[in-house]
Amino acid sequence: MPETKILLEEKDIPTHWYNIVADLPNPPAPPLGGDGGPLAAEKMLAIFPGNILEQEMSVERWIPIPEPVREAYRLWRPSPLVRAHRLEAALGTPCKIYYKYEGVSPAGSHKPNSAIPQAYYNKVAGINRLTTETGAGQWGSSLALAGQMFGLEIRVYMVKVSYHQKPFRRSMMQTWGAEVFASPTNMTEAGRRVLAEDPDSQGSLGIAISEAVEEAASRADTNYALGSVLNHVLLHQTVIGQEAKKQFDKVGDYPDMIFAPCGGGCNFAGVTFPFFADKAAGDKRAQNLRFIAVEPASCPTLTKGVYAYDFGDASGYTPLMKMYTLGHDFMPPGIHAGGLRYHGDSPLVSQLYHEKLIEAVAVPQRATFDAGVQFARTEGIIPAPESCHAVRAAIDEALRCKQTGESKTLLINLSGHGHFDMASYDKYFAGELEDYEHPDHAIKAALERLPKVG
Amino acid sequence: MPETKILLEEKDIPTHWYNIVADLPNPPAPPLGGDGGPLAAEKMLAIFPGNILEQEMSVERWIPIPEPVREAYRLWRPSPLVRAHRLEAALGTPCKIYYKYEGVSPAGSHKPNSAIPQAYYNKVAGINRLTTETGAGQWGSSLALAGQMFGLEIRVYMVKVSYHQKPFRRSMMQTWGAEVFASPTNMTEAGRRVLAEDPDSQGSLGIAISEAVEEAASRADTNYALGSVLNHVLLHQTVIGQEAKKQFDKVGDYPDMIFAPCGGGCNFAGVTFPFFADKAAGDKRAQNLRFIAVEPASCPTLTKGVYAYDFGDASGYTPLMKMYTLGHDFMPPGIHAGGLRYHGDSPLVSQLYHEKLIEAVAVPQRATFDAGVQFARTEGIIPAPESCHAVRAAIDEALRCKQTGESKTLLINLSGHGHFDMASYDKYFAGELEDYEHPDHAIKAALERLPKVG
Repeated sequence: MPETKILLEEKDIPTHWYNIVADLPNPPAPPLGGDGGPLAAEKMLAIFPGNILEQEMSVERWIPIPEPVREAYRLWRPSPLVRAHRLEAALGTPCKIYYKYEGVSPAGSHKPNSAIPQAYYNKVAGINRLTTETGAGQWGSSLALAGQMFGLEIRVYMVKVSYHQKPFRRSMMQTWGAEVFASPTNMTEAGRRVLAEDPDSQGSLGIAISEAVEEAASRADTNYALGSVLNHVLLHQTVIGQEAKKQFDKVGDYPDMIFAPCGGGCNFAGVTFPFFADKAAGDKRAQNLRFIAVEPASCPTLTKGVYAYDFGDASGYTPLMKMYTLGHDFMPPGIHAGGLRYHGDSPLVSQLYHEKLIEAVAVPQRATFDAGVQFARTEGIIPAPESCHAVRAAIDEALRCKQTGESKTLLINLSGHGHFDMASYDKYFAGELEDYEHPDHAIKAALERLPKVG
Repeated sequence: MPETKILLEEKDIPTHWYNIVADLPNPPAPPLGGDGGPLAAEKMLAIFPGNILEQEMSVERWIPIPEPVREAYRLWRPSPLVRAHRLEAALGTPCKIYYKYEGVSPAGSHKPNSAIPQAYYNKVAGINRLTTETGAGQWGSSLALAGQMFGLEIRVYMVKVSYHQKPFRRSMMQTWGAEVFASPTNMTEAGRRVLAEDPDSQGSLGIAISEAVEEAASRADTNYALGSVLNHVLLHQTVIGQEAKKQFDKVGDYPDMIFAPCGGGCNFAGVTFPFFADKAAGDKRAQNLRFIAVEPASCPTLTKGVYAYDFGDASGYTPLMKMYTLGHDFMPPGIHAGGLRYHGDSPLVSQLYHEKLIEAVAVPQRATFDAGVQFARTEGIIPAPESCHAVRAAIDEALRCKQTGESKTLLINLSGHGHFDMASYDKYFAGELEDYEHPDHAIKAALERLPKVG
């Protein structure tokens, strides 16, 4: 039997991040100020360091990874590429299925790939405190870990409903020394305003972002860090796909299709963009390669949203970004893949979808857990609910190929494990998971409230 | 900086298990029947397959690992050996600290190393169902996973208090297709007897063992599997130490001291026995190598128990084994390292301790979490409470060496991660963890109730 795990050495950790902007057929649409006018640099510099804003705007193809970041990556990178022999056998498919497993990071997901450099660049810029928001807790715990690595204090505003429902993600952040508060708090103007209206507010990601941004903007020693959507976050995640390419080289294979869960877009970008570079460079193997962003049917940003300027947060505090959106006040149902409950999508991923360079598919919740359980029972690893989306779509393709007799090579980005999501698996087994399909009329109504630009 | 992770290829997964019995200065004391007479083979054959009993009694030094077991090991083995650069720096110690990380298994601990072969050997023997007990759930989840790998039904009797306090370990077992019942149940004579006396019984490991053994003994298609203590379980765990030796070879190093948590003894045995083989073979590097079994001060089996024949379970259903024991009806306090709450110790580890070939140290609970948090904040990984014991003892040695200026090479067996133990970390941070020191008079009283033998 060929190898199960395809491993690299630490010297194979990429030395550069890949910036897809250099290879896009068209330049990205610029972010705009909240009023639709040009974006004010000083407003961004109040919450982000200059070195990160430089990356955010960069058009350089390759951006060097600082050595201290590579050192920290060595705690878990390179992550394994695994051939899913047992899943293939269980499906009886002629396809080869591989998965890149990002759950080996101490935080259990791909999120530290960007948390580590964000902490580093802030430290270098003289910043000793970061604020951030977190929903399910994957980003917050990754930033807490990164704070320990570079000696920064981390304050996390955690959506109140998650704070109480996911106490163990909170414990994890505290173990890594972060302060965690249930948002809305009475520590910020934004929080107090919400509490005045509704003392029992359970919070939302939009409110938590507002609190974190407000605090960062009001303190000179404190910046803000975001876990997805922005260009620099996607950039940092490209270590995933670069490693995967080396791993495919090692076994003389190459994918025909890549499947990744897609919420804000950073893990989809992380695994696919470096293969996009092959395509752009004219690599023959990549010419028919397909990139599949897998999103929840209940939050179908790419498949049912529109491509327009919208706010990144629910309250309209952020700049306007051109992206696929369901409307910034769209309230996704309480599905268990918290990382995919986002009304928008990263501008870069949105542009690629708009230009038909990538594909998207929306899958219903129960079917994703069917796939996750089948994966766990064959490959051992219990996937995070977000990752189950990619597994679902890949299994569907493998079964389709079983019918047609095609023998494709499929790559799944298994973005994290589900150790902190077992309550969701419980609900699945108890038959209590619901499938939500977002109704067209609700989307239409939300889109009518888009900000008017230009 | 030298490598952080020292990795092996799948071809380096050991081909044989190492049986320390072949290298012991004295033959092991035989197990006896519950009445103190010779052990009846047919009673053992009612719950264990012949191929496993053969391993249990074997005196062969090297026992081949069946290829299907090695195939299943490839899902996560070889596990990494990691140089704890950041912990060393934080301690300012001249010591080199390495840890062998067994938390990379899908179940998150070293337990699948034996669950996989136990499931395999039962399958080969024509058995399609296994029963077992579990406390904290690490063993139960490992056997559930192993059942999936070889197509066996798994029924787990989970101590009722854990069933309710650790619902996510239960969910994990169900995700891997196992049936899980809160013990005591009304499905067995043993369970019904307990419930008749106390309908609100919260269960104990002893009761759960009785239920699992009773069911296995009463059904021809069903066997029983145990997760520690017995010779064959320790044997299977020797893949850990064998890999570690190859990994040290790869970097041209060799340990001076090995630290492992010790409850039933299987993870201590797994990492240390293969190094004991070096010692026995006259390897010069191994002549001053020290093996440190780390146990909780609240359950100080080796450090405060006696070496005598005793039952393996609380109710006296098992054969008698010669081992260090605190008395089979010793009730350890509710410490958070559930895997170390065992009144006895494996007969092999006990014999080594009795013959002064290994050392033991007992550490208080709060100090183990101090060490676990320091480890998490430097190395990223949040250790299981059991593993925190070994980390504590190794840090103590590293700090001692800082005083004396000695530069030793220390190896920790990091037996698992703490993702399912975050409630314990919560208690630690809330200042609610207690230190228990077991009083000498209670031990004395328990030891007076030892069974009379010979």
